[in-house]
Amino acid sequence: MKAMINNIDNIIKHINESNDFIVTSHISPDGDNVGSTLAMYYCLKKLNKNVYYVLDDNTPLNLKFLVKGVEILRSNELKINDYSLISLDCGDKSRICVSDEIINNSNKLICIDHHASNNYYGDLNYIDSEASSTCELVYNLLVRFYQVSNLNLIDEKVATALYTGLVTDTGNFSYSSTHPSSFEMAKELLILGAKRDTIIQNVFQSNPFNFYKLLGDALNTLDIVESKIASIMLTKEMLKKYSISFNDVDAITSYTRDIQGVEVGILLKEKKENEVKVSLRSKNYVDVSEIAKTFNGGGHVRAAGCTIYDSIENAKKLVLQEVLKTI
Amino acid sequence: MKAMINNIDNIIKHINESNDFIVTSHISPDGDNVGSTLAMYYCLKKLNKNVYYVLDDNTPLNLKFLVKGVEILRSNELKINDYSLISLDCGDKSRICVSDEIINNSNKLICIDHHASNNYYGDLNYIDSEASSTCELVYNLLVRFYQVSNLNLIDEKVATALYTGLVTDTGNFSYSSTHPSSFEMAKELLILGAKRDTIIQNVFQSNPFNFYKLLGDALNTLDIVESKIASIMLTKEMLKKYSISFNDVDAITSYTRDIQGVEVGILLKEKKENEVKVSLRSKNYVDVSEIAKTFNGGGHVRAAGCTIYDSIENAKKLVLQEVLKTI
Ligand SMILES: [Mn+2]
Ligand SMILES: [Mn+2]
Repeated sequence: MKAMINNIDNIIKHINESNDFIVTSHISPDGDNVGSTLAMYYCLKKLNKNVYYVLDDNTPLNLKFLVKGVEILRSNELKINDYSLISLDCGDKSRICVSDEIINNSNKLICIDHHASNNYYGDLNYIDSEASSTCELVYNLLVRFYQVSNLNLIDEKVATALYTGLVTDTGNFSYSSTHPSSFEMAKELLILGAKRDTIIQNVFQSNPFNFYKLLGDALNTLDIVESKIASIMLTKEMLKKYSISFNDVDAITSYTRDIQGVEVGILLKEKKENEVKVSLRSKNYVDVSEIAKTFNGGGHVRAAGCTIYDSIENAKKLVLQEVLKTI
Repeated sequence: MKAMINNIDNIIKHINESNDFIVTSHISPDGDNVGSTLAMYYCLKKLNKNVYYVLDDNTPLNLKFLVKGVEILRSNELKINDYSLISLDCGDKSRICVSDEIINNSNKLICIDHHASNNYYGDLNYIDSEASSTCELVYNLLVRFYQVSNLNLIDEKVATALYTGLVTDTGNFSYSSTHPSSFEMAKELLILGAKRDTIIQNVFQSNPFNFYKLLGDALNTLDIVESKIASIMLTKEMLKKYSISFNDVDAITSYTRDIQGVEVGILLKEKKENEVKVSLRSKNYVDVSEIAKTFNGGGHVRAAGCTIYDSIENAKKLVLQEVLKTI
């Protein structure tokens, strides 16, 4: 096992000494995924590096504004041999969203992440499971970069990318992973030109009208067990009926948690027959990353996820069984 | 007309030189109302002043945790003659939520507020319409107090009260009134012991199960005009059906604004027959406080409100007419 040490200065040294990079993140992109990858991409460009943004998944609708004009490649479109791979916001090597070839052929694998389940799979790692977001770690890296090189890489675009991951991974600064340092970062990013209003409007205030119809149907499936566990089921038929895509409904998860007395919230999303993505949230004392682990998933203490290969009804039963043990 | 000047140091001087205070706020309490009044109440107590918290309205369910153990009096329960009245977060003298007698008999009326429509109705005023919240103004006052007296009045309770108003009046730091100073304040309050998790859970994550049933019905009334104006109607029958009280549904307002392409969101709440409270929100360019003014209401550029004495259907027509002029 590799030494579980953080190498922030070695990562900076490696960036300074190398020329070719691929940046990527985990499957099922979210704001922190896109924000941290994009910020790193822009910074490496500013340093005149050769850099490719590779991700074999689709950007959610509400994050498209962020990557407008940015070339995101698929693994099979890539033609370079000599490169370092920077994996951002990805807690598990098997969830890195590029081909195995790209992972295995990299000269150096650099991992920057805040998932508690991260086993330091990189050659160089900067992992902090207490951090609000990977964007906060990238911000720290850039602050450190400024300290050692006197070069400020955070312009409007970088600030906007980082701010996006910060607000999405903290639920607008509401999760307990929001530390005083997160507010300090938010303050500095605003001053550096982060387009906060654009972010808020695109990420949170641009729901399709149909999304609310789907939400109405979803609330009909809201179910409470022992007053402490709430769940919502989204079948593929429901998504199809309203033409809402699988990657665009994660916001519904919070409706399961935000109920009086509820400790654990569960959103079950049917991706296809016998493949159900489960999102878990907790309020106070249940470590949902442990529950997700039972199903080969992972995440954070208060927000985690996994995939269950069974019918949505069975998936619900299986998850409930595990959650009940913790209540 | 009184000089429209801010008197932060004179307010501090007056507090230091006086002994008896009443603190209050506007009708229909919200988080900033309760947070700023309570913070001022605690601070005056700490300074060994005689202080009464008076408000002739009910605290919303999700803010009750904050005032637990605090004696909030009604106007008619009060028996003092010689006092200064501090009005917090109240943009209009006629909305101060105590009897006219209490207002008229005060030695000094001190007004601390951030509503753009405020006409400096106090004898001493500290008004800043750019501020995120009245809580941020109270925070500034306490920081200034510390500078001049070297006395830190912000303990855990005060920090918690101020943090509450900050998050509720900024929609969790998402409105454009959230400035770098607001993040600096959030950071400091966290360090000073603000019970952030308690606030978030009580204010945003303790919705009654029935609230979501009401939300489902509310979404059924969601109506869009010219792709830019969305409205939801809540009749008194709907509230009654789910035993949800009039003061506990304001969170539904955001569902009208957070739709793709929508500029103005309108929530119509029927208080009683021919009395409809209207909440207005905008995203980018419409000044909803101007629309509210047409109906003798007020508020901020992006969030305002008014009351229309007519049927809910007519109220909707009347408001839509005014909104259409601005689109
Ligand atoms: Mn993340
Ligand atoms: Mn306010």
